[in-house]
Amino acid sequence: KIDRERLWKVLHSTCEWGKGERWGDGPTDIGMSRLTLGDADKQARDWFVETTKSLGCKVQIDAMGNIFAVRTGKNEGPPTYAGSHLDTQPTGGRYDGILGVHAGIEALKTMNDLDIETEYDTGVINWTNEEGARFPISMISSGVWAGAFSLENAYKLVEVGGKATQKSELERIGYLGTLEASHKANPIGAHFELHIEQGPILESSGGKIGAVEGAQAYKWFTITVRGRDCHTGTTEFQNRSDAMLTAAKLILHSHNKARADGCLASTGILKLRPGSTNTVPGWVQFSLDIRSREDATLSKLEEALKKDFERIANGEDVSGVNAQGTKGRGCTVEWQLDTDSPATKFYEDCIKCVEESAKSMLGTNAGGQVRRMTSGAGHDSVYTSRHAPTAMIFVPCREGISHNPAEYCSPEDCGNGAQTLLGAMLRYDRY
Amino acid sequence: KIDRERLWKVLHSTCEWGKGERWGDGPTDIGMSRLTLGDADKQARDWFVETTKSLGCKVQIDAMGNIFAVRTGKNEGPPTYAGSHLDTQPTGGRYDGILGVHAGIEALKTMNDLDIETEYDTGVINWTNEEGARFPISMISSGVWAGAFSLENAYKLVEVGGKATQKSELERIGYLGTLEASHKANPIGAHFELHIEQGPILESSGGKIGAVEGAQAYKWFTITVRGRDCHTGTTEFQNRSDAMLTAAKLILHSHNKARADGCLASTGILKLRPGSTNTVPGWVQFSLDIRSREDATLSKLEEALKKDFERIANGEDVSGVNAQGTKGRGCTVEWQLDTDSPATKFYEDCIKCVEESAKSMLGTNAGGQVRRMTSGAGHDSVYTSRHAPTAMIFVPCREGISHNPAEYCSPEDCGNGAQTLLGAMLRYDRY
Ligand SMILES: NC(=O)NCCC(=O)O
Ligand SMILES: NC(=O)NCCC(=O)O
Repeated sequence: KIDRERLWKVLHSTCEWGKGERWGDGPTDIGMSRLTLGDADKQARDWFVETTKSLGCKVQIDAMGNIFAVRTGKNEGPPTYAGSHLDTQPTGGRYDGILGVHAGIEALKTMNDLDIETEYDTGVINWTNEEGARFPISMISSGVWAGAFSLENAYKLVEVGGKATQKSELERIGYLGTLEASHKANPIGAHFELHIEQGPILESSGGKIGAVEGAQAYKWFTITVRGRDCHTGTTEFQNRSDAMLTAAKLILHSHNKARADGCLASTGILKLRPGSTNTVPGWVQFSLDIRSREDATLSKLEEALKKDFERIANGEDVSGVNAQGTKGRGCTVEWQLDTDSPATKFYEDCIKCVEESAKSMLGTNAGGQVRRMTSGAGHDSVYTSRHAPTAMIFVPCREGISHNPAEYCSPEDCGNGAQTLLGAMLRYDRY
Repeated sequence: KIDRERLWKVLHSTCEWGKGERWGDGPTDIGMSRLTLGDADKQARDWFVETTKSLGCKVQIDAMGNIFAVRTGKNEGPPTYAGSHLDTQPTGGRYDGILGVHAGIEALKTMNDLDIETEYDTGVINWTNEEGARFPISMISSGVWAGAFSLENAYKLVEVGGKATQKSELERIGYLGTLEASHKANPIGAHFELHIEQGPILESSGGKIGAVEGAQAYKWFTITVRGRDCHTGTTEFQNRSDAMLTAAKLILHSHNKARADGCLASTGILKLRPGSTNTVPGWVQFSLDIRSREDATLSKLEEALKKDFERIANGEDVSGVNAQGTKGRGCTVEWQLDTDSPATKFYEDCIKCVEESAKSMLGTNAGGQVRRMTSGAGHDSVYTSRHAPTAMIFVPCREGISHNPAEYCSPEDCGNGAQTLLGAMLRYDRY
């Protein structure tokens, strides 16, 4: 049995590094702002390395700054890992990613405490830049490991609103490792990831543990709208090429269309130029995040939006956004694909290890409390599953709130998750 | 007669300070980016002071950094001024404001060249921060002079996207003057302002000189939309309080409604938080610039938008923006008034001086080439007209383009404007 109190205490003590906004009165009612590869992330990483070394682990850092801590087992062979991430959103919480890493460390501590000898090596991974918040490609480092991105392109990625690159920041904080970032050079035996659900399903259905079968598909785009700067006071609507008004129409339409297709659409970043109250902006750039359970549905939505955006920017009416005729002279629209994460199915063997572990922990009345589900968010497990048996464990979070300082997972649910994780790893190791 | 070549040459030579984007192949086909009180503005100011002093003017700087250069006349009494501004938009052109100041200086040079003795003093004014681009209240310094803003509030104004205040920047560049910024302490006898039209009317009607009768009303607001940060991948539309989606609807609706009412609406600035592709923004702030010829029409639009924004943010449908039902849980909307510039009527006596001067310059076929018109933009003349006889002179600019690097006024039109300005000043001085 894991030490639930120790897990809770250690997790929150490390949340000193990268503290965010306070949202409540309790000692842990403070959000996180630990952007990847920043100074606070370095502190959390240093703690990770020290702690796992002190548990007797061999610690290696790869070329993307991913950290692999391994506890030796009886036989040689790729380790069974618990993996997740210590970076957060700019206004994130204390559980998204962080819980998964801490639960992995707690699992290793428990194995040590109980002198458990595993068949093969076991370990914990801290993946770099899972969030994609600072460098805007999510899970890029497990992606490089999986061969989905080249190291070269990953290194060049520039931070949102700044100039630093992933490589320059890895160097700056001393986490540019020598191990090749590759599933071939550094294989994984199995990957289990504990994570808060980040949605309301478990909580609202009374579920305790989600055995995650896979993740929905998503794509991230940068959309650039080009019009013409002009004076707000002297330029009639019909003479404008208003990139901001056009962007507003595109954003509204993307939501209308996604909703009609049973998908999601979101814009989380928007920049404009020149940025003056009395100049109609000639340039707007915004992010578009679209999601669906099915790759085919997502592709259909993407194709439809590409056509519709073009038509809307040219003043044609689509879903009412140009109905009132403030169309002006039109703008151009350019799409750039930043992230393409297809729908993922995890491994039945691993999912079963999670289910069995959860049921044995919850005991006789486990029935409805363990449920199979699909992840709305992407996770590093999406990439590990391309080259290693993988499954995830979800625990409830309050009101499904995540990517928000008020994200919350109770000590009980954190403990349940960590216990299930340990059980799943040991089950898989024996199997 | 003014020296048209000298005017053109000197104007463009000073455009070295604060050069912007090149948009064509010609030597002057380069825009301007001379934000008020920046280093380039200081260079232009230093040039203004030196030049007018070398012409024998007495130069004074007031507490808002407005610069008054005065050429002595026969009798004592408040001077007849040519006034405009040397600051530009971040992506501005070489004529908006700059032409008016240079034409004023050219008028003084011509008076010197021809040994003209005026009845009263004459002079040129360079007003600080006319554009309202860096510190977001337009014409704030002529506004302080007119008593429309307190010096204290003007000093506190913070730059867009930064921390500097108007006062700290006035101090930094050495233009915090000792003269009181007040129409009482420093009265103006009359104010003539030459400016490019910034719209297409003169050009498309074959007009050469606009005798400007007044300016339309406008108001600037900062609108803050508050929702809740959440995960883009795990939060269904109905559980979101999406501040960006709501802002998109409000921006679209403001255009629809303004158009229906024969007004203008524009959004030139938009900021959001936290600014991550996979977090639905919980906070968006944008500028709203609304304009109308009639104060009453503008007030009606403002009132309607205040009600409509509230309803739209709460998910009610107004003008179709919520028709598709992606309304979620709603957001709050807060309005802040930044600039209130009522409709302005200039002085008939001054307008007549402009008309007569233009007609005498254009000669026999002047008929349709001089036309009375209303300004779509605000100008420092709006504030001087509260306490001094005022009129403006418009000259055509290509395609009505302004607040854009490609803003262009031909040498002929620049010269016509300066000649009309000199004539109007001398006519008013005699009168
Ligand atoms: N779990 C999580 O927030 N992952 C980031 C990638 C995504 O936006 O789905
Ligand atoms: N002329 C000019 O651009 N003035 C700035 C104030 C306004 O936006 O009307």
